[in-house]
Amino acid sequence: MNQVAQNPIGIFDSGLGGISVVRAMMELLPDERLIYFGDTARVPYGSKSNETVRRFSRQIVNFLLDHQVKMVVVACNTASAIALDDLRGRWNLPIIGVIEPGATAAVNKSPSNRVGVIGTTSTIHSGAYEKALLTRNPNLNIQSKACPLLVPLVEEGWPEDDVLTGVLERYLSGYKQSPVESLILGCTHYPYLKEAIQRVIGPDVNLIDSGEETARMVQDILIEKSMAHTPVGQDAARKHHFYVSDFPQRFQETASRFLGRPLENLFRIELEVLESYSVG
Amino acid sequence: MNQVAQNPIGIFDSGLGGISVVRAMMELLPDERLIYFGDTARVPYGSKSNETVRRFSRQIVNFLLDHQVKMVVVACNTASAIALDDLRGRWNLPIIGVIEPGATAAVNKSPSNRVGVIGTTSTIHSGAYEKALLTRNPNLNIQSKACPLLVPLVEEGWPEDDVLTGVLERYLSGYKQSPVESLILGCTHYPYLKEAIQRVIGPDVNLIDSGEETARMVQDILIEKSMAHTPVGQDAARKHHFYVSDFPQRFQETASRFLGRPLENLFRIELEVLESYSVG
Repeated sequence: MNQVAQNPIGIFDSGLGGISVVRAMMELLPDERLIYFGDTARVPYGSKSNETVRRFSRQIVNFLLDHQVKMVVVACNTASAIALDDLRGRWNLPIIGVIEPGATAAVNKSPSNRVGVIGTTSTIHSGAYEKALLTRNPNLNIQSKACPLLVPLVEEGWPEDDVLTGVLERYLSGYKQSPVESLILGCTHYPYLKEAIQRVIGPDVNLIDSGEETARMVQDILIEKSMAHTPVGQDAARKHHFYVSDFPQRFQETASRFLGRPLENLFRIELEVLESYSVG
Repeated sequence: MNQVAQNPIGIFDSGLGGISVVRAMMELLPDERLIYFGDTARVPYGSKSNETVRRFSRQIVNFLLDHQVKMVVVACNTASAIALDDLRGRWNLPIIGVIEPGATAAVNKSPSNRVGVIGTTSTIHSGAYEKALLTRNPNLNIQSKACPLLVPLVEEGWPEDDVLTGVLERYLSGYKQSPVESLILGCTHYPYLKEAIQRVIGPDVNLIDSGEETARMVQDILIEKSMAHTPVGQDAARKHHFYVSDFPQRFQETASRFLGRPLENLFRIELEVLESYSVG
């Protein structure tokens, strides 16, 4: 038996958005144990310098490695775009970002090469999805749109209504004039708006949920490397742990809403403690 | 003649919101020359540690002092709450924040002690307005409400319509159930929504525009200290200068919309250059 297979999978995000990726992984890989780190004290990463995002990412991977993770999922679009190469160069375990799986799925689901990407201003401005998409297919026609209101709308947790529909109609109007075959939800908050987005953009567009695609890629790697967890007891896979660097207002409510069930095993880790981890 | 009176007034903000304060000062004090600094590369300050906000604020005041400013206006709610005492302890020129003038005006316009405050999540969470208000009148009944969607809504520059009205009705519903006499617009972006806010909250509530109140306080200090500028030539007061640490997307459009006219004399200052200013 592969001893490493019994170890947990580490996942991190700048905040709580990455919980959508946790949720997708819990559904697809129910036997795996997950260690989540949300850097809620230092969110958002999108407005920070590249070197700072890389430094924070290294600190968090060190923290996850102390928990003997067998794989790291970077469930943050900014860190996936900026820190992934740096992390892969430093450590020898599988490190997966959310951009590559989403880009691969969009290419596969767009036979006429018409792809849309929506995300935060910083993700769209970074061009990370365009780069990943064009690497896979240089003939793609890509339409990107920054949607800065969607993250605060998801976090408010308002019921789906005229406000949400009005905002989405404004952001997605370009895709009605010039249709795409697939639309990448390029922000970990957006899966929570999937039904409303599908309703506004129409049923013919394939919505690409980066979290789901990332979970599938993790599954492939676990099988390929014989690292999938073998359940030894009924509760073995249920002991997920959640760490955050700060408890923002309404944290429990927001996090539990994102996860779809109450958060258990939740801990706060002081930034100072994190800082004291040596960076490899 | 007071030689210092011919010097400009320095104003800074973490980004572009402070331009609403510039606009109020240009209207009330047309003979004064203004030097604006917007720290667009490091916005937002609300998610940064207190020590970092103080350090950035000191760097910017040093930069403004190199331009011989006679007074500094901290046109940023976060820096006003966190850095004002530190700055006042280090330099001996008048340094004015946006919280105190707004709190004073609200107290004066609320004879039955019922005051509302709206702002970003970090401003409301900091309790800075509550503290400033209760120092002035401990019997106040204060209702605060964080409105995280309003800044991105203002920055999108969408026309006033059902989306904006729907968002405001949701945020302001508490004030309809439990009315206030005055409502502090505790974010420099909110004056751009003044008409819509007044329409939704009703005509009986006094809206307190912190930018306008701050301009009035600046005027009082200029008169009290005999520091008001005496126009010596037609264009003397028109040579305002605008500095930013980064040009974000759509910067010119947003900034000109905020100012109500095209921005002239606009410069970008590298953060590295700022870093090299000695901090007093």
